[in-house]
Amino acid sequence: MAETVVIGLDPGLTATGFAIVKNNNNEFSLLKSGTLRPKRDLKLWDKLFYIYNELTTLLREFSPTEAAIEDVFVSKNAKSALKLGHVRGVAMLACNLFNLKIFQYEPSVIKKSLTGKGTATKKQVKYMVNKLLKLDGNLSFDASDAIAVAICHLTQRAFYDRIS
Amino acid sequence: MAETVVIGLDPGLTATGFAIVKNNNNEFSLLKSGTLRPKRDLKLWDKLFYIYNELTTLLREFSPTEAAIEDVFVSKNAKSALKLGHVRGVAMLACNLFNLKIFQYEPSVIKKSLTGKGTATKKQVKYMVNKLLKLDGNLSFDASDAIAVAICHLTQRAFYDRIS
Repeated sequence: MAETVVIGLDPGLTATGFAIVKNNNNEFSLLKSGTLRPKRDLKLWDKLFYIYNELTTLLREFSPTEAAIEDVFVSKNAKSALKLGHVRGVAMLACNLFNLKIFQYEPSVIKKSLTGKGTATKKQVKYMVNKLLKLDGNLSFDASDAIAVAICHLTQRAFYDRIS
Repeated sequence: MAETVVIGLDPGLTATGFAIVKNNNNEFSLLKSGTLRPKRDLKLWDKLFYIYNELTTLLREFSPTEAAIEDVFVSKNAKSALKLGHVRGVAMLACNLFNLKIFQYEPSVIKKSLTGKGTATKKQVKYMVNKLLKLDGNLSFDASDAIAVAICHLTQRAFYDRIS
């Protein structure tokens, strides 16, 4: 793959981290990252609508062809899992409507891919994200996690491309 | 409200029940009901895409202005709650994109509204659905539950309209 643009997503109802990462011959660069935060007093469906609108705006602007989404190791309680499901469903739908290929990675795989350690802390992941993309360190954890899943995906893709 | 068209939804990843119910001066009639069943071998996001497409086709065809969705009393485990969340998120988004007002009702409220008893069985709910809409009884439980939430909503709306 000469050039691929990937959107990395770390979905959440309060905060959804996103990152648009370009891979140009295994040179990664960050086109945009940030956090979507629906207003707290919105109803559930209006929060989802907000997230959907913001995501489709990003998809339209940057035309990524692949989406890497953080998978969930469900250790949380059923109520928060249900809430999270709503956001993940909407994020997947947005990506599907824009014909992106969708990939999911478990947190431990992402952490291992970035730091070599499946149990790395968010701080360690953020440190590696900053190092790999030559950033100034001014990232929220949500954005850093979204970049991490994008890099994890690009790294695995590069690996599969080499062996296939 | 002289005439209102409501879509009732009982979301699920394997089976999503839907019902389009018209209220004409408190005469309820069923325009369409059924169950959306994505193929089992589809990936999660393609199941969601299928459900979204089927729902938007219904919304386009029948132009309901309100959606009544079965709320979840989360007694299930976190994994199934997460899955269910994906479908509910997509269903809410579809309704929101078509400018429907969204309402949620807990299962016990729906059952009570239909049968007078919050702990009624699916069979009892189906019996009342058939009776109220003068149907021939040939309904799946998913469709019957979707009709039930639509009727519950219309009944509550009629009540609020009377007292306000």
